[in-house]
Amino acid sequence: MTEPRKRLEEIGHKLGILPRGELNLISDVPGVTVGHSTIIEGEGKLIPGEGPIRTGVTIIKPHQGNVYREKVRAASYVFNGFGKTIGLVQVDELGSIESYVALTNTLNVSLVVDALIDYHLQENPDIGISTTTINVVVGECHDGKLNDIQGRHVKKKHVFEAIESAERVFKEGSVGAGTGMSALGYKGGIGSSSRKIEDQGATYHLGALVLSNFGMKGDLTILGKKIDESADEDREKGSIMIILATDAPLNSRQLRRLAKRAPLGLSRTGSFGSHGSGDVIIAFSTSNKIDHDNKDSLLVRAIVNERTKLFRNLLRAVVETTEEAILNSILKAETIVGRDNNKVEAIPIEKLKRFYKSDEK
Amino acid sequence: MTEPRKRLEEIGHKLGILPRGELNLISDVPGVTVGHSTIIEGEGKLIPGEGPIRTGVTIIKPHQGNVYREKVRAASYVFNGFGKTIGLVQVDELGSIESYVALTNTLNVSLVVDALIDYHLQENPDIGISTTTINVVVGECHDGKLNDIQGRHVKKKHVFEAIESAERVFKEGSVGAGTGMSALGYKGGIGSSSRKIEDQGATYHLGALVLSNFGMKGDLTILGKKIDESADEDREKGSIMIILATDAPLNSRQLRRLAKRAPLGLSRTGSFGSHGSGDVIIAFSTSNKIDHDNKDSLLVRAIVNERTKLFRNLLRAVVETTEEAILNSILKAETIVGRDNNKVEAIPIEKLKRFYKSDEK
Amino acid sequence: MTEPRKRLEEIGHKLGILPRGELNLISDVPGVTVGHSTIIEGEGKLIPGEGPIRTGVTIIKPHQGNVYREKVRAASYVFNGFGKTIGLVQVDELGSIESYVALTNTLNVSLVVDALIDYHLQENPDIGISTTTINVVVGECHDGKLNDIQGRHVKKKHVFEAIESAERVFKEGSVGAGTGMSALGYKGGIGSSSRKIEDQGATYHLGALVLSNFGMKGDLTILGKKIDESADEDREKGSIMIILATDAPLNSRQLRRLAKRAPLGLSRTGSFGSHGSGDVIIAFSTSNKIDHDNKDSLLVRAIVNERTKLFRNLLRAVVETTEEAILNSILKAETIVGRDNNKVEAIPIEKLKRFYKSDEK
Amino acid sequence: MTEPRKRLEEIGHKLGILPRGELNLISDVPGVTVGHSTIIEGEGKLIPGEGPIRTGVTIIKPHQGNVYREKVRAASYVFNGFGKTIGLVQVDELGSIESYVALTNTLNVSLVVDALIDYHLQENPDIGISTTTINVVVGECHDGKLNDIQGRHVKKKHVFEAIESAERVFKEGSVGAGTGMSALGYKGGIGSSSRKIEDQGATYHLGALVLSNFGMKGDLTILGKKIDESADEDREKGSIMIILATDAPLNSRQLRRLAKRAPLGLSRTGSFGSHGSGDVIIAFSTSNKIDHDNKDSLLVRAIVNERTKLFRNLLRAVVETTEEAILNSILKAETIVGRDNNKVEAIPIEKLKRFYKSDEK
Repeated sequence: MTEPRKRLEEIGHKLGILPRGELNLISDVPGVTVGHSTIIEGEGKLIPGEGPIRTGVTIIKPHQGNVYREKVRAASYVFNGFGKTIGLVQVDELGSIESYVALTNTLNVSLVVDALIDYHLQENPDIGISTTTINVVVGECHDGKLNDIQGRHVKKKHVFEAIESAERVFKEGSVGAGTGMSALGYKGGIGSSSRKIEDQGATYHLGALVLSNFGMKGDLTILGKKIDESADEDREKGSIMIILATDAPLNSRQLRRLAKRAPLGLSRTGSFGSHGSGDVIIAFSTSNKIDHDNKDSLLVRAIVNERTKLFRNLLRAVVETTEEAILNSILKAETIVGRDNNKVEAIPIEKLKRFYKSDEK
Repeated sequence: MTEPRKRLEEIGHKLGILPRGELNLISDVPGVTVGHSTIIEGEGKLIPGEGPIRTGVTIIKPHQGNVYREKVRAASYVFNGFGKTIGLVQVDELGSIESYVALTNTLNVSLVVDALIDYHLQENPDIGISTTTINVVVGECHDGKLNDIQGRHVKKKHVFEAIESAERVFKEGSVGAGTGMSALGYKGGIGSSSRKIEDQGATYHLGALVLSNFGMKGDLTILGKKIDESADEDREKGSIMIILATDAPLNSRQLRRLAKRAPLGLSRTGSFGSHGSGDVIIAFSTSNKIDHDNKDSLLVRAIVNERTKLFRNLLRAVVETTEEAILNSILKAETIVGRDNNKVEAIPIEKLKRFYKSDEK
Repeated sequence: MTEPRKRLEEIGHKLGILPRGELNLISDVPGVTVGHSTIIEGEGKLIPGEGPIRTGVTIIKPHQGNVYREKVRAASYVFNGFGKTIGLVQVDELGSIESYVALTNTLNVSLVVDALIDYHLQENPDIGISTTTINVVVGECHDGKLNDIQGRHVKKKHVFEAIESAERVFKEGSVGAGTGMSALGYKGGIGSSSRKIEDQGATYHLGALVLSNFGMKGDLTILGKKIDESADEDREKGSIMIILATDAPLNSRQLRRLAKRAPLGLSRTGSFGSHGSGDVIIAFSTSNKIDHDNKDSLLVRAIVNERTKLFRNLLRAVVETTEEAILNSILKAETIVGRDNNKVEAIPIEKLKRFYKSDEK
Repeated sequence: MTEPRKRLEEIGHKLGILPRGELNLISDVPGVTVGHSTIIEGEGKLIPGEGPIRTGVTIIKPHQGNVYREKVRAASYVFNGFGKTIGLVQVDELGSIESYVALTNTLNVSLVVDALIDYHLQENPDIGISTTTINVVVGECHDGKLNDIQGRHVKKKHVFEAIESAERVFKEGSVGAGTGMSALGYKGGIGSSSRKIEDQGATYHLGALVLSNFGMKGDLTILGKKIDESADEDREKGSIMIILATDAPLNSRQLRRLAKRAPLGLSRTGSFGSHGSGDVIIAFSTSNKIDHDNKDSLLVRAIVNERTKLFRNLLRAVVETTEEAILNSILKAETIVGRDNNKVEAIPIEKLKRFYKSDEK
């Protein structure tokens, strides 16, 4: 019987100085839920367009209402634009997101956009008829080493399945969009982490969710220590998607400042931002939602001055949660054998034993 | 019998001071061709998802080879990001385009991306298997006033049809992606124009192609004169896509400088850059193509110093061709009656008669 | 006796459709004032470092309080970065301005920054000791055709003089920073214009102030008409600084959207954005000032939804006031003879007579 | 007798996997030299404008010729724009640097710009008379804790002294602009490091020079290990300037990609990119210099394809040299007592002993 895979906290480690949220997941931000659809079919030799299939889709719901009607403030930061994320032009201009956020494989982005349009049209039948159109946000990584990526096997039904299965508690590792992803020489995929910040009597949350698919084995760094320094593979790899959520009342400029800190967490796991790694960060706040139909000016709550401990701790939380979410994506991922029997191994538990503090207790 | 619709040059006008290219089309840039697929089906009451259909797709081929294998240098400039153009993240990072460029309606962008992936996979079966994936560039405007935009009626067959029909000589007005578009109170759509620039014994070309769908009738300005100053509609409208091509040996920074000048041409037709108008410019050079597989460093021809008459004239050509392409898109567009019998009139030839210099000759 | 030079409104013209503010100056935005110091000394042959001097400095006060203590929300847009404006890095990051805004000649920017630091240190002796430092914003154009620009003749006393002379009513044309500037083949310099916008019972203002020093004579366009189409000079010229002020409650993202529209007004006067023209726009709102010392989060009044007539009219007002401010800078400028007897003529009143509507009345 | 302060390599450590350059300084890039002027005067109580003085200026010469006449390709990346660096608007637009690069204290930037203008005018007396003006690049950090920063004590003579003393071998730590700076709870200042990269028979170099003045003691991380985890100061601090140089033939887009990786190295020393830390990176290549006067188009050598081991190693070298340069800035800095007897301690050699590999040999 194999040992269960453990998150960083389960092997006994703090990371950084801020306290974790209750679940240590992005869904500690009230209202946020995450759903996956995982597609694993066939094995052996690649037949382009047919299989084998090792892919999926992951949906982040910014809140539980109608997101088109109640948009969330948002920003993006493209650390390395060698990627195909869709929707950022409008996110940057208007400082808001008006759809669920989806993650999938690179060539499947367009079909996932189309499925999300279908879903949001159901909720908002006036789109494109008596009101404006909709901007859908979908990010991606390239899972072609394990998956028949040309096949674009994520269909409308998978997107709807992921939407409908969204919960506060969700799986990490080789699931959803993470099914076919690899990171730092081992199996990667979905990971998450959160922090909570007390300020003037209120509690704020900041959470990260990553889709990890970047880096070289020789660079993998856990808690400041290299794991496989002698590894000498030198294949161009990519990428990572990082989604940040908070309930602090930030505007889009402030959210962009947060997003720019995520690569600092990425760095601490071993990335040097390789050419081929399309590294994209999307940040949103569930506070101060924007009513699609209301045209009045309003009073909004704001962090007017960023020279505060609250804002500083939000920046710190980005770095801590990004690093920890990436580590969780690797620690929780299971070995996957995919197309042409390509195999990406989960990081061996033996390699991790030296980090196991919980075992000592 | 109705009078034929005439381009600006056919009614006897110069615009600006640079000489026009041979066809006065973007395809005066050697290698560039343009194809349309126009979809007009049904009439009367809108049945969302079914029709009536007044839409299409327009394809710009940067050159006649394999664009994925021989990428073109490129840049984008988002003047107003209230839009859903796909592919710009990578264009901006790498300074190149590796697919045909397509234009269509807003909700159809994703299916057109998917069809373009299909097309380029045929030519490059190694994509996503033994080489990287592909970045596809698709721009859009919102034709929902005339078209059942929820129906996403542009299918793979239409995209392939547009690709296969691409020629140097192509139609303007209510065709392809322009079928359902309106501009400055009248029917708009596809328009184009070009300039040629002599420099040190060589001849360079710069061409613009627009998909016009912006502005209010009261603002329409032709050659410095308002046409309908009393018009007082005040509905939020949008947008415009502007594609610029040149054979001058520019790098991506220089192409971005060109792209930023296109709104100056837009302004002269009456736009004030309204909130809802997603105005996006994409510029590419057919010179110094980038070999997908070659990893050597190379000697490239470059305009090292931008303090030259050549570079200045390229900037001027952007402003002149953008203004003229927009005017052509309106002058050539035919009246369209669409969903719910919504009708957008072609600009009446009577309104234009006062500009007709050619009649005087 | 020469005829007095007249602003566009004085020769009887509306420009655009929005009503002008009371003074038709940037200072129609409550709290904003403008001061100049004009330096004209010596004549004849240039002795670098000594003269002749034809230069100056212009100060825009965003409000009448302590601007370091009560910062204004702000944004910049660099249309063409061939320029030496100082302070934009921090304006863009924090979305605020905390100093007076100054305009001067290119090589004098640094000494004007130093003088502004002196001024603000007097008001805020804790700067750099018990609180942070200060970010000063200074823009420039190149007046070296008329002025001994190497001499950097704008000294601390001139900056203080301009600050102390700031008023709601101020001069345009060949004054302050505009003393040695040329635009579109004629004498240029300082110009201003404003619009007022009624919305839901409130009145908002938007004003522009320009320092014009760009363009070629053959391109000069007044109200849609070329003035000197046959002029064929082709010397590289530059630049323009455009300052926008409003009392509408905009955040920095929204102010940047406004700033991006200013080149549309610039275009209508004849600019094609030439390579050498460093064209920089700075926009600020006097609403929702940011208290330097207060670290609480606050309720702020905001335009939450930009799909409103108010926001659309603010965009339109930018285009109208920019165009009109540029025309005013030329219409009001007097002929200047400078170094080496270089002469830049005011636009002849005869050229303008055909526009004189007021004479008809 | 105190032990001499040692660089990271002197205490026996590799950092990363790429080989160091000969001197392990930015000046391993052929042609680059660095000079300092250090100003230490007075002690005791602060008298604003008089002293005590603990500041200086550091000059980086991109090459040994006339930099205005032979500009270097360049790019900047503003990681956190809470800073007053001057000159970036033009660097970003034109992709080049045409002056020496200077570093100093925040309030002194303008006087250092003015002195650099003086220096370059001597070499180029046609500036502003028969050719264009000059864009000068000066970066800064805030040394007000130790230095009478209001006094702006860096004068023209100090700038000229730093220029004239520039050499390949230069000091690190509490010298030049680094005299009054603090980093991660200890004395910081100037540090440098380099890497060399072999590719297809050629050797390229990449070097970093930092002016470190950021971070909190509890975050200081050396080679993956926290040094003072229990330190709980929580004062807002800033900033860091990072200068990158290479002789690889990169264009400005590629240099900007390099610059964006520097924060990854910064992260590994403990920074989380705090609000108040103005973190600015400037990168230049000494290859393919741009002749100010030549207006022909030219053949330039270029890295056409970034999917190469060379480009990947350049990115990696940025991360490695940035981290090591920061560590060197701290390791080499001497304790400084400044205004009001404020004291910033050098990192105690005892704290470092556990890292001393060289002693073991």
